[in-house]
Amino acid sequence: MATKPKLHYPNGRGRMESVRWVLAAAGVEFDEEFLETKEQLQKLQDGNHLLFQQVPMVEINGMKLVQTRSILHYIADKHHLFGKDLKERTLIDMYVEGTLDLLELLIMHPFLKPDDQQKEVANMAQKAIIRYFPVFEKVLRGHGQRFLVGNQLSLADIIQLQTILALEEKIPNILSAFPHLQEYTVKISNIPTIKKFLEPGSKKKPPPDDIYVRTVYNIFMP
Amino acid sequence: MATKPKLHYPNGRGRMESVRWVLAAAGVEFDEEFLETKEQLQKLQDGNHLLFQQVPMVEINGMKLVQTRSILHYIADKHHLFGKDLKERTLIDMYVEGTLDLLELLIMHPFLKPDDQQKEVANMAQKAIIRYFPVFEKVLRGHGQRFLVGNQLSLADIIQLQTILALEEKIPNILSAFPHLQEYTVKISNIPTIKKFLEPGSKKKPPPDDIYVRTVYNIFMP
Repeated sequence: MATKPKLHYPNGRGRMESVRWVLAAAGVEFDEEFLETKEQLQKLQDGNHLLFQQVPMVEINGMKLVQTRSILHYIADKHHLFGKDLKERTLIDMYVEGTLDLLELLIMHPFLKPDDQQKEVANMAQKAIIRYFPVFEKVLRGHGQRFLVGNQLSLADIIQLQTILALEEKIPNILSAFPHLQEYTVKISNIPTIKKFLEPGSKKKPPPDDIYVRTVYNIFMP
Repeated sequence: MATKPKLHYPNGRGRMESVRWVLAAAGVEFDEEFLETKEQLQKLQDGNHLLFQQVPMVEINGMKLVQTRSILHYIADKHHLFGKDLKERTLIDMYVEGTLDLLELLIMHPFLKPDDQQKEVANMAQKAIIRYFPVFEKVLRGHGQRFLVGNQLSLADIIQLQTILALEEKIPNILSAFPHLQEYTVKISNIPTIKKFLEPGSKKKPPPDDIYVRTVYNIFMP
């Protein structure tokens, strides 16, 4: 049996949380090595374990994968989360890229100055409600299916659910004008592997707090 | 015969230039519809031609593709620029993602304040020389082949060459410590489709100037 993937990142969401989501949804167990100090990062860099000297890094099937998107794509390919043909794959890719643009705002949010954080919540809400959610609401309404693309779970659904749930933590009524997305969120959340990931005790990380922010600064600031 | 792809973007490099590079390298002729005014963008948005209300957008094979990476991936898949198996594909993906991080600095550079532009050139040079080029120099030295991955041209080579040449415009000696990358640059530049794209009269765009910057502000600023 192959060894479990090992994730190298601080003990928090950041750019690794999507990887945790996708592995969990694919039913893949994984280990985590939490970075806590600058010295640990330096050690990974000095040992040539990080292609571009950055984390996230995931050891998987004898490779040391870096770059969030590349890691997500590899796992999606391995676990049939990328559609049945190039047309589906391309739709999934576009939906994921759009959603990652929105998720990026959430990832950067805890590192803004306190004064800017509230303004940025308003900006995220606006982006979500005006630019992104109407697209996915229309897709779901249009085909009346359970998943965003085709008749099975894809990377697009996983990143979408991750982003919706993280936004709802900040803006509880964010889906109020999107009934199909509400229903979709419930259904995707009930897929057994995902349901398990959403339960207490899973490797899903809590919302970023001051300790996480301080840890990140300690590790990555020169 | 299929109609030519049509690219929708301002008449300048920006996020579309990689798409022009990849199409040209694949030997695909394309048309361009240059955005010049806010009204043209609004018309595309109102007509539901832009999935997330943004360009780049490329009409190709009956689809309206958006999100730079998704467009690049689709063309690379169609034209066998993504390796021979999942392992090669993943290497190509990682190399592309790293190089796009570097290219992003070049894309944003003309929009910085004049005082910040010179500092940013120093930052780009440092990133290129310390983080990115050593990786690719080592890859090329290690396998002694012509291409970054496998025995044929891939998306990784195309984005790499685009980035190297754009950096050299700003920092002519940027490759001085990287002999394998120098040789590689010459060889990839001599691939017939790419050679043609590098000659005057091609659809390759010149370095961003004040007119381009003003046009972008006019179109995209609220």
